[in-house]
Amino acid sequence: MRNLALMLALAGLLSTATAAPPKKQPAAPKKTAQQILAASPASDWRALDPQNTLLMELASGQVIIELAPRFAPAHAANIRALARGGYWDGLAVVRVQDNFVTQWGDPDGEDATKAKALPAGASAKLPAEFSVPLDRIGKGAGFARLPDPDGWAPRTGFVQGFPVAADPKTGKAWLAHCYGMVGAGRGDAVDSSNGAELYVVIGQAPRGLDLNITLVGRVLKGMELLSALPRGTAAMGFYDKPEQRTGIQRVRLLAEVPVPERPALQVLKTESKTWTQLLDARRYRSGWFVHSPGHIEICSASVPTRAATAAQPPR
Amino acid sequence: MRNLALMLALAGLLSTATAAPPKKQPAAPKKTAQQILAASPASDWRALDPQNTLLMELASGQVIIELAPRFAPAHAANIRALARGGYWDGLAVVRVQDNFVTQWGDPDGEDATKAKALPAGASAKLPAEFSVPLDRIGKGAGFARLPDPDGWAPRTGFVQGFPVAADPKTGKAWLAHCYGMVGAGRGDAVDSSNGAELYVVIGQAPRGLDLNITLVGRVLKGMELLSALPRGTAAMGFYDKPEQRTGIQRVRLLAEVPVPERPALQVLKTESKTWTQLLDARRYRSGWFVHSPGHIEICSASVPTRAATAAQPPR
Repeated sequence: MRNLALMLALAGLLSTATAAPPKKQPAAPKKTAQQILAASPASDWRALDPQNTLLMELASGQVIIELAPRFAPAHAANIRALARGGYWDGLAVVRVQDNFVTQWGDPDGEDATKAKALPAGASAKLPAEFSVPLDRIGKGAGFARLPDPDGWAPRTGFVQGFPVAADPKTGKAWLAHCYGMVGAGRGDAVDSSNGAELYVVIGQAPRGLDLNITLVGRVLKGMELLSALPRGTAAMGFYDKPEQRTGIQRVRLLAEVPVPERPALQVLKTESKTWTQLLDARRYRSGWFVHSPGHIEICSASVPTRAATAAQPPR
Repeated sequence: MRNLALMLALAGLLSTATAAPPKKQPAAPKKTAQQILAASPASDWRALDPQNTLLMELASGQVIIELAPRFAPAHAANIRALARGGYWDGLAVVRVQDNFVTQWGDPDGEDATKAKALPAGASAKLPAEFSVPLDRIGKGAGFARLPDPDGWAPRTGFVQGFPVAADPKTGKAWLAHCYGMVGAGRGDAVDSSNGAELYVVIGQAPRGLDLNITLVGRVLKGMELLSALPRGTAAMGFYDKPEQRTGIQRVRLLAEVPVPERPALQVLKTESKTWTQLLDARRYRSGWFVHSPGHIEICSASVPTRAATAAQPPR
C-alpha cells in the first residue's frame, strides 16, 4: 500500500541536526525535529488567546486563525467586532488563485443593495497598518532575529509566532507574506480595508506585497482546508459560478465559544530555545541529506502547534 | 457576483513598471505585464520540444511537464523510456503534503510481488544528478542571471525556462526547488532514483532540498490539477486509503502524441528581453502598490506560456 521508498525519499526533511557555524556541516546529527519537540519543556508552549483567535467552521472542518494585534491593532479590533456580530456566518470563499491566495468574504459585497451589513461596532474602513515602529519588536516583544540574509529586508525574524521583517533605516517593522499568513483585502486607497474580506497565502511567499497591504494574522490549524480548494477559473482565481464557492458555516471569536468547545491547542513560543533548536535543525541537515543548506528564511519554517493534553492545560 | 473591491484589492499584482536602479522606484509606471507580453515579438517565444515534454492525463484535465535534460540527462532519458512504455498509465497520485509536494507513481512499488515492471529500456536506478558543472550554464546556454541577492546560493537566474542556482566556489550549478518544479524521489542512496516516482513542489520553495535530490523538469500547464488535490492524512501526506488517490489515465511523451492532438503551447524564452522586462515589472511596482520591493527571487516568478495561434505556429 504505502510506498516505503517514497517515504524514505523525503523522510530526510524531518531528520535534523543541531546548531553549527553558518554554512558548515555539524560534526554529527544530534536531534531530530521530533526529538527536539518531544524534549521541549511545558514553559516553551503557550495557550491560544481567546481574544485573538478566530474559529472558522467549514463543512470540511475547523480553521483556527491567530490575530496579530501588535502589528494591526485596528484591524484586529474590527475583526473581533465582525466575528462577534456573526458577520462571516453564511458567507463564502470567493476566490482561489493557484500559487497565490484563497480569499473569503461577502460574494455580494460590491452590490450595495445586496451586501451584508457590517455588525454594530465594526467600521467600514480602517487606517492602513502596513508596518509598525521598529521599537515595537524589541526584546520586550521577544524578537527572535534570524542571522540568515534575506533579499527582501535587512532584518528578519519571529515575533510571538509571526514572521517579521524590519529595516533600521526606515525604522519600520512589518509582518511578512509567508505561507498561511492572513491579510485584509483593500482597494486602491490604502485605508480601504476593514478586515471583512480576508485572504490567506497558499503558495510561494508573495513578499512583494509586504508593506502594501495589512496582514492581520495567520492560520494555526486547518490550512489544508483553504489551500486544497479548487482554483477559480475566472480572472484572478474568482469562481465563475456561485455554486463553486465553499460556504462558511460560521466564524467565532474564541472568547465567544463555550470553554468546553474550544480547541485545546498550544503554540510553540518563538522566543523559546526549542524554536531556536528547530530552526537550526532545518538549517543544518544530515542523514538523508548529502548537502546541508546552512540557511533558512522566515517563510521556510512555520511555528508548531500541538494538542494540549491533560498534563498541559490549555489555559 | 464578482466582488470588484476584492479584485481591486490585489489587482496591483499585475500592474507593473519598467526597470529602474535597484531599490528605487521608477519615475512613473510605463508598461504592465500584460502590455509587455502583448508587445513581445514572436521570436521571444519557443515551441514545446516533443522529445522533452510529457503530457499527463488526469480525469480533471491535462498536465504538461517540460523535462530538463541539460541538468538531468540520465533521468530525462529514463523518463522518456518510461513514458514510451506506458509506465504511468493507470498508476496514481499517492501523496499530497500541504505546503510541500504532490507525488505520483506506483502505489504498489514497494511490494515486489505487485510492483509494476519497468518497461524495456528503462533503468531501475540512475546516477545522482543533483548538479552540473557551472560552465554548462554559460552564455551559450542563455543563462539570464538575476542581480538580486539570494540567501540560498551566491548566483541565481534562469536557464531555458528553469530556475537555476550556482556557486562559483564549488563550480556547480543546479535546478532550484521552486513552485511547480518536478523531481525524482529517492531512498537513502543518492543513486536510488529512476524517475518512476515523481513529485512536484506545491508550496513555499523547499530550497533546502536543492543539491540533495534530482530535479527533472517543471510543470508548464495544469499545475492546479496537482496542487489543489486533497491532502493525505497519513504520515508525510500519503493517502490512507486507495480510493483517496487520484488516478493517472496516461502519460505520454509529446513525440508519441499524434501531431493534431498535441497542445499548441508556446513558452517565453528566458533569454529574451521580454522576460527581463517582466522581471523588472515584478521588481519595481507602482499603481496599487505604495511600496516597491526593488527585489525579486528565482522562485517568485514563473515563466509564461501562451496558446500558439494560427499566426504563431507551434513548431
